[in-house]
Amino acid sequence: MSPRNAFYAQSGGVTAVINASACGVIETARRHADGIGTIFAGRHGIIGALTEDLIDTGQESAAAIAALRHTPAGAFGSCRYKLKSLEENRAEYERLLEVFRAHDIGFFFYNGGGDSADTCLKVSQLSASLGYPLQAIHIPKTVDNDLPVTDVCPGFGSVAKYVAVSVREASFDVASMAKTSTKIFVMEVMGRHAGWIAAAGGLASTADCELPIIILFPELPFDEQRFLARVDDLVKQHGYCSVVVSEGVRSADGQFLADQGLRDAFGHAQLGGVAPVIANLVRERLQYKYHWAVADYLQRAARHIASKTDVEQAYAVGRAAVEFALAGRHSVMPTIVRENDWPYRWSIGEARLEDVANVERKMPREYISDDGFGLSPAGRRYLLPLIQGEDYPPYHDGLPSYVRLRNVAVPKRTATNFALK
Amino acid sequence: MSPRNAFYAQSGGVTAVINASACGVIETARRHADGIGTIFAGRHGIIGALTEDLIDTGQESAAAIAALRHTPAGAFGSCRYKLKSLEENRAEYERLLEVFRAHDIGFFFYNGGGDSADTCLKVSQLSASLGYPLQAIHIPKTVDNDLPVTDVCPGFGSVAKYVAVSVREASFDVASMAKTSTKIFVMEVMGRHAGWIAAAGGLASTADCELPIIILFPELPFDEQRFLARVDDLVKQHGYCSVVVSEGVRSADGQFLADQGLRDAFGHAQLGGVAPVIANLVRERLQYKYHWAVADYLQRAARHIASKTDVEQAYAVGRAAVEFALAGRHSVMPTIVRENDWPYRWSIGEARLEDVANVERKMPREYISDDGFGLSPAGRRYLLPLIQGEDYPPYHDGLPSYVRLRNVAVPKRTATNFALK
Repeated sequence: MSPRNAFYAQSGGVTAVINASACGVIETARRHADGIGTIFAGRHGIIGALTEDLIDTGQESAAAIAALRHTPAGAFGSCRYKLKSLEENRAEYERLLEVFRAHDIGFFFYNGGGDSADTCLKVSQLSASLGYPLQAIHIPKTVDNDLPVTDVCPGFGSVAKYVAVSVREASFDVASMAKTSTKIFVMEVMGRHAGWIAAAGGLASTADCELPIIILFPELPFDEQRFLARVDDLVKQHGYCSVVVSEGVRSADGQFLADQGLRDAFGHAQLGGVAPVIANLVRERLQYKYHWAVADYLQRAARHIASKTDVEQAYAVGRAAVEFALAGRHSVMPTIVRENDWPYRWSIGEARLEDVANVERKMPREYISDDGFGLSPAGRRYLLPLIQGEDYPPYHDGLPSYVRLRNVAVPKRTATNFALK
Repeated sequence: MSPRNAFYAQSGGVTAVINASACGVIETARRHADGIGTIFAGRHGIIGALTEDLIDTGQESAAAIAALRHTPAGAFGSCRYKLKSLEENRAEYERLLEVFRAHDIGFFFYNGGGDSADTCLKVSQLSASLGYPLQAIHIPKTVDNDLPVTDVCPGFGSVAKYVAVSVREASFDVASMAKTSTKIFVMEVMGRHAGWIAAAGGLASTADCELPIIILFPELPFDEQRFLARVDDLVKQHGYCSVVVSEGVRSADGQFLADQGLRDAFGHAQLGGVAPVIANLVRERLQYKYHWAVADYLQRAARHIASKTDVEQAYAVGRAAVEFALAGRHSVMPTIVRENDWPYRWSIGEARLEDVANVERKMPREYISDDGFGLSPAGRRYLLPLIQGEDYPPYHDGLPSYVRLRNVAVPKRTATNFALK
């Protein structure tokens, strides 16, 4: 009996290292051709399964698959498409199984965050109840770092490194200019619901290179007076300061600062960032010159300055997912287990999807300094290991050589044209 | 007779490699202690000379000076302070010479852009007319790339590389998301008066990795209809596109797009970026989801992804300035001479300050594609050599090891307290 095939899909916002997980899945599966047949990938994530738009990764050369390890974003395409609950749209789940059955898919590797863990669990449950043998395994990925059980979500460490490096560099810049010009540099980072990424800005300041940095966390309501007083203190003491602000910072009444009534010339609400709001506030109240940046996709796509630790972990969870599958496991997710803080030692663990799906990990308050504007020693102890090491991509003529796969389509086998809701 | 001393100052906006020029100056001068005595640096640029706030670089270790080569921003502090004309404020120039005389300074190395070249020339002329022997030599530096004669301004190549790498990475990201989510990524870059930096975004797309990119240049009036049509074309063809927009883009009536009437809740004008203006326009007219980023200081401080070519050129112009001084030259600026496009070969040349001061180099129209939205082959031929090679800084515990100098003050010798205007 020939081994059954596998389906792999990328879900949600992509990262600098999600392709490293794909690389881990495919390379490991190829080494176990006796246990796993073809790896199909979903074109644009789970949509590729629903519409039977499968990619035959067997058509890619070993070199192309190896290059996934150093290529950012989602090589097969991702999507923001959350399956509804089984009760609301059972047809979607049944359609997945129909496509899986048509292609003899016995392994489902779903690479994403909390929503995809939930989908993965439901597919697993439904396949069991329908008697269709399927091993569903979730592979963690999210820059938001909000999955439980695992020490860290692959993808986060590289964003953290990008933010820490950038804040250090920009702080050096503003320090140079502060005498006659810019005194405040504001950098907006991702993290609508949690301050993990903003916290990483605090890593830029170290004992051997202290920098005046203020962090604005979404976990704490924005206190304008205390913030301005802190800015003024730091400028008087150091001549300048940097502010790292999470896109999710809210005022005491719960409103996002980024939404505070910006209007264009026609009175339309403008989706501005929170960085210019903070910068303008400083200018109006303290009359300090400022510059501001919004990193947006640059932070999560920055494979050129990825954390080596993160790349290794992303690859490892992909490899482990296949090893779990070969060991007969299902409804699980490989996790990163922290064995030691410093030097950082980690191993691969296993979480049950029941314990992962719909559980959001919050950043502990103890990771934030008492005054609410910085990283605490506990926060530093947690974060610093995650940005260790550099893992530079190869360059060709001055630019990183990122791979684009052939992404050859697999002929359809079902007669159904499934309409996405 | 002991050799006379030198004064070195950094001027205007700093770059990822201006310290590499400082490194070239100091290391070269140290090797010629028979020709040049102590190198004094101005704390906060020329202000350090006016207020007699000099730094004794002789107090820095060889290792610290060597580390300047990989440290971004201005290690001695820079300033935005333009000396007035000789007629308007002769006292400033005379004060400079007073301080130079008090410290037996016979060499003036001024590291900056067009304004500082002009200052350097005037100081040279005044010293000659007053019979004070001074060799004034300008060292080119500006991310704006607007100095004449030289093939490129050190500092620009690294910004160009940062922008090219970032646009490639973000394009991979948005390509992954485009099926169900973001279709347009807008990245704002520096260049209020010229599109050199925006043009570098076009380098992200190469024959072996074509990417749909639109560039908005400050040289061309923004044509909303044509722009939207181009965005729509690219999205229909590729599923997504990236837009690189210069902060200096203006509408046909000459108004900066960034200033187009953004108001906060109180009706105050908001200094927003141009990226959100472009992004909102696309959303309103084409209903495409977007993300936008403003790179700001991150682009010019990004020593972590500096161009090796740029680093070498920055060091070379610093070294050449000292060699020119030792050869008895004055009122000159070392330049980069392009010997060959590809493979890029360059050498050091010499420009007279009369030919540099107050001459602004514009970007040739022929560097822009005929349709006005991209880089032409001629533009690529010019730009591509400048981003060649990587020159990674050393890292310690996951962060780049950038040096901070001791910056020991030199005891004052003049009795005057000069008040800055």
